[in-house]
Formats: sequence, C-alpha cells, structure tokens
Amino acid sequence: MIKTDILIIGAGPTGLFTVFEAGLLKLRCHLIDALPIAGGQCSEIYPKKPIYDIPGFPEVLAGKLTDNLLEQGKQFEPGFTLGERAETIDKQEDGSFIVTTNKGTKHQAPIVAIAGGLGSFEPRKPLIENIAFYEDKGVEYFIKDPEVYRDKKVVISGGGDSALDWAIFLADVASEVTLVHRRNEFRGALDSVDTVQELKLLGKINLVTPAEVIKLHGDSKVEAVSVLKDGQEERIETDHFIPLFGLSPKLGPIGNWGLDIEKNAIKVDTFDYQTNIPGVFAIGDVNTYPGKLKLILCGFHEATLMCQSAYKILNPGKKYVMKYTTVSGINGFDGSRKESPKAVVKAIV
Amino acid sequence: MIKTDILIIGAGPTGLFTVFEAGLLKLRCHLIDALPIAGGQCSEIYPKKPIYDIPGFPEVLAGKLTDNLLEQGKQFEPGFTLGERAETIDKQEDGSFIVTTNKGTKHQAPIVAIAGGLGSFEPRKPLIENIAFYEDKGVEYFIKDPEVYRDKKVVISGGGDSALDWAIFLADVASEVTLVHRRNEFRGALDSVDTVQELKLLGKINLVTPAEVIKLHGDSKVEAVSVLKDGQEERIETDHFIPLFGLSPKLGPIGNWGLDIEKNAIKVDTFDYQTNIPGVFAIGDVNTYPGKLKLILCGFHEATLMCQSAYKILNPGKKYVMKYTTVSGINGFDGSRKESPKAVVKAIV
Repeated sequence: MIKTDILIIGAGPTGLFTVFEAGLLKLRCHLIDALPIAGGQCSEIYPKKPIYDIPGFPEVLAGKLTDNLLEQGKQFEPGFTLGERAETIDKQEDGSFIVTTNKGTKHQAPIVAIAGGLGSFEPRKPLIENIAFYEDKGVEYFIKDPEVYRDKKVVISGGGDSALDWAIFLADVASEVTLVHRRNEFRGALDSVDTVQELKLLGKINLVTPAEVIKLHGDSKVEAVSVLKDGQEERIETDHFIPLFGLSPKLGPIGNWGLDIEKNAIKVDTFDYQTNIPGVFAIGDVNTYPGKLKLILCGFHEATLMCQSAYKILNPGKKYVMKYTTVSGINGFDGSRKESPKAVVKAIV
Repeated sequence: MIKTDILIIGAGPTGLFTVFEAGLLKLRCHLIDALPIAGGQCSEIYPKKPIYDIPGFPEVLAGKLTDNLLEQGKQFEPGFTLGERAETIDKQEDGSFIVTTNKGTKHQAPIVAIAGGLGSFEPRKPLIENIAFYEDKGVEYFIKDPEVYRDKKVVISGGGDSALDWAIFLADVASEVTLVHRRNEFRGALDSVDTVQELKLLGKINLVTPAEVIKLHGDSKVEAVSVLKDGQEERIETDHFIPLFGLSPKLGPIGNWGLDIEKNAIKVDTFDYQTNIPGVFAIGDVNTYPGKLKLILCGFHEATLMCQSAYKILNPGKKYVMKYTTVSGINGFDGSRKESPKAVVKAIV
C-alpha cells in the first residue's frame, strides 16, 4: 500500500504543480497516471509544440514545460504510479481513501486531487481479431521503455507524428523496423517525414504502404503479423507490433466514483475546487464551474487554492500563515534549501 | 484623451498579463502606474530577487519575470501612462469610464481593470521642512531617467538596496555623488555594500555617515543641503537631493471610487472578478474573495477569466469560442504572427 498526504490522479501540468504547492505546506504527494510518463497531454500529445499562453513564457514547448514543472517540484519528492489507470476509490472508516489501479496497485491518502485533464488517454486500437490476447505479449500501444526493443524486430502501424517519431528512434535500437500505413502520405512535422524518407532509402526502415496489419500470429506471444497490401497478404516475422493510432481521452472509471458530473467534467465549488465528496478535489481541465476555462494557467491557480484546504483538513485547528517564497525560501523534503541571497548589514568605513 | 478597450490600473505582473489575454480576444489595453517603470513590486522592490512559485519556473528573478511578461504582451501594443497615479473615475452617459491621473492625464474606456497590487507605491519622505516645495525642482523620490543626473552633483540619502544601487550607478554618471545615511551600517546585498566601500576608497562616492540631511537650500530649485553629523551642520552644494527611504503601498484614491472595500482590498465575485460597479474589475493582490491568496499566479488566472467577461460586455450577443494558442497561434495587433510549425501531409516513396 502506497501512503501519502495528497493522492493526485493525473500527472499533467496541474497535477505536477500541485506537488510544489503542497510541498510548501509540508504535504507529500503521489501521482497516478495512465500514461507511462509524466506531463499528460503536454508530453504525450504535443511535447514539441509551443504553448504561448503560459504566463511569463512568451513561448514554451509543452515538453519543456513538463520538465520545468518536474524540476520545480522535485525537492518535494513526489511518488509516481505511471502506466496504470486509477480504477476504484473506497472511503475508509478513518475518512481516508483507497484508490486502486487497473493493475491492482493500492494507494491510501486522506485527500484525493483529481487532476485528470480530459480523462485518461486510451489508445485507439486497430480492429484486429485476438489483439487483446497479445496485449503485453508483444502488442504495445505505448512505448514505455525503448530498450525493450533493442535488437528485436518491430512493426509499427500508423501515419502520424507518433508513428514517424518512434520509427525514427527505433531505427537505431531495433534490429528491424517496419512501418505500415494505410496511405502513402504521412501527416506530421516536415522534418520527421523527411527523416523517415531518408531512413527508408538507407534501408533502415522497411516501409509498407498503402497497407494494413490484419492478423497477428504466435502461440503465446507475437511472432508475426499479416499485412494486406494491394489485395495480397504478406507475412512479416516480428517480435513486437506497436499500433500508434492516437489517443482518445475518456473520463473512464472516475465517472463511476459518485461525483457530480456535468458534460464529462466534475462539478466543483470555486472556494477550493472540492467536489461533492468531501476530501476529493478536482482541478484543471477535469473540473467545471461557472466561468471555467480549460487552460493550464487556471489549473495552476486551482491547485494552489486546493492545497490550502487540504492543509486545513490535514491540520485541523492549526493556523497557516502564507509565506512568500521570495522572503522565506523553500525547504525541500530532500534536505535541500533554496533561498534568495540574504541582505547583509555591514559598515562602510 | 487616451482611449482603449480595457484600462488597467497597475502595471505589475497581473496587469501586464491582462494585456496578453485581452489581446487574444482582440481587445486593446492601456496601463496606468504610479511607478515610473512597468513591473510593479517586481521591478521596484525586488527586481534581483528570485521567485520560486511561478508555475513552470523553478526560479525566476522578479525583474526577468517582468521582462518576459512585457515580451509576451508586446505584439498587442499596450499603451502606458507611467509615473502617474490614477486619481478619479467618472462614469459617462454612454457607460464608459474616464480615469484621470494626478497629473491630469485623461483615459477613457468601457472596461476598467484595477490590478493595483497592494496599492500605489508612495515614497517614504524625510521630515524636512519645505521638502514639498522642492519636489520636481531637484528633489526626486524615484529615479526615472538616470541621464537627468549626468554631470550633475547628487546627494542620495538612505541605507538600503536602492540607495546603494543608485549610488553605484550614478557614480559613473554624475559629477559628484554623496551618500548620506544615519548609521555606518548599510543593509543590502553583500556585493552592493562591498562595491560602495570600494567606490568610497576610490573617491568616487563621498560617504557621509552617521549623518542626516536636515535642510534644503535654493531659491527656485535645490542648490545645497545641510547635513547634521556629530552635532555639526555641514553644507553640501548639490543639484539634486534623492531620498531613498523605501516605498509604502497605499490603496490611495481608489479607496474613494465607491468600491466595496474590505481590509484594504476590493471585494469581487469569483465568476469574473467584477466589483460592485459593473464594468470595473479588480484582479491580483488588490482584490479579495473567500479563499483569496495574494499570489502572482492567482492574478494570472483572475486576469484571464476577467477578459472573458470584458469581451462579452464589449461584444454583446457575440459568441466567443476559446481557441488554444498551440492550435491557433497568435495574431499580434502589430501584424506579427506566431504559430506552431504546421504538420505536413507528404508521401514517402
């Protein structure tokens, strides 16, 4: 059982910033995310795209924003359960909650902060019979650890940025990379399309277009796929089949937690972004209230106000006086200290 | 008469970010600030101090944050009335407001956003008879343009960072710099104290401590000051006397605008941070509501929500569909365009 003060569902920008604000109040956080990496949409959907409306950044790449937020919170030592989807929540007699993931990992905390964005990102799966049987037996919809593919044969399917970028990356890792797409045209950054074109000419990527993977073979794990091209079925031996057809956000199991839901978002009050279940908050794109805007900068504000209430729940009767970081500095849970250079009082003679 | 869509009182971080968010909605802004530069406290009080709680910045100097916010809004061409304090507000028959400064500059706008922080920063003035007579005639409490002091004689009074930093800066500009302080000990960055010590030994700063300026002389402008040291009065010829005893924020004239005030802050609702006067909003540290935190990041959120309501007031009946900057890019009023590199659709052969 993983225990923490604030259990955050969703490791996107709002969830990550919660770690920092909670840390200032000496509260510990643990984050659960269905994606295999922190950053939410910023990391998974558009890491290389610029965001222009983060205050103080005339322009920042979404991936860079994620890195910065991880850095900003790291001295507060957040825990992570990644690649698992929060599935059930159970209120305990002591008032705390136990949240269990789809893989059975259990987390206990007195405060739950749902920072779930548009929902957990579920991969769009190709319609191939028996594909479910091969999941985690050679079929992966996300690439968690590229080293898994070292010196293996890989078939990637898809025609967008993910398929292009991973084909490029794995061309140097895997023993053989085959990229299958139902059209000749790919849609992605010009640079990525050109690189795949080059790698194809160099023989480092085996391009099969226009074509579709229609069957999977193998007794206990993937051993080959069948590809349909020009009406002909071709068998390609492979260790892995990685369909990258995009992600689609789904509110998912959170929808069954007994929360007030309106148009796929969780209703909260604007005092502290608490839901109808005391002790469960919803912050960032996942919540709704009059005037709500689904912007990252609003999630930052909501996370900050929420932490104040979390502090009061966890420290009943204790008065908290807010201190400015510029004045008081920051004491990390890891023993680190950040502070503004101190003024000296010194005679000039 | 200066006319704009949103007249912002206060050019601190919240006011500056309003320019950006308003610009996304094609609304123009003009800012009034009592300080001679943009940035509010961040520029005037602690430009060289790090802030740790701006989301996405593990650490940022307050002055750098101001620069970034100016840069982020600059394509929306904000106007500035600096060094003047907003004094009166008058509602016109057409529903717009006219705001007049202490120097008589008039501004007209249908929307007023008070982003006044802790209030307008008023200099702490030394108790010297007739000092008011010499104001703007050789006595200045702020340094607006250092070039004014080129090849002039200057007496600075004070023992903190401002006095130290300006004495250092003007040592290379003025023909003579005298620094008067009532103690031998200065309080400031170690580096600044050491530099003043050096400049004193080099004869570039004339240090008079422990001492106090007690009289000003001159018929129509400052010609000399009297300094009391060790019980003796000494006359120092000078063109300027610059007392730098710090700034103290005062809500000031805004307190008489008919707004609901609670503990020196303006009461707003959290839907759009509108005050009791329709069309007048209050955002950032100057406002109050249940759960309010006086943090820069909260001002950013408040400014953003406020702009949505401003848009609706200025465009009645028009439906606004929020677009993400990452998706839609930004069209500046200056004709500039920022956008994410476009995806291409291209065949690989």
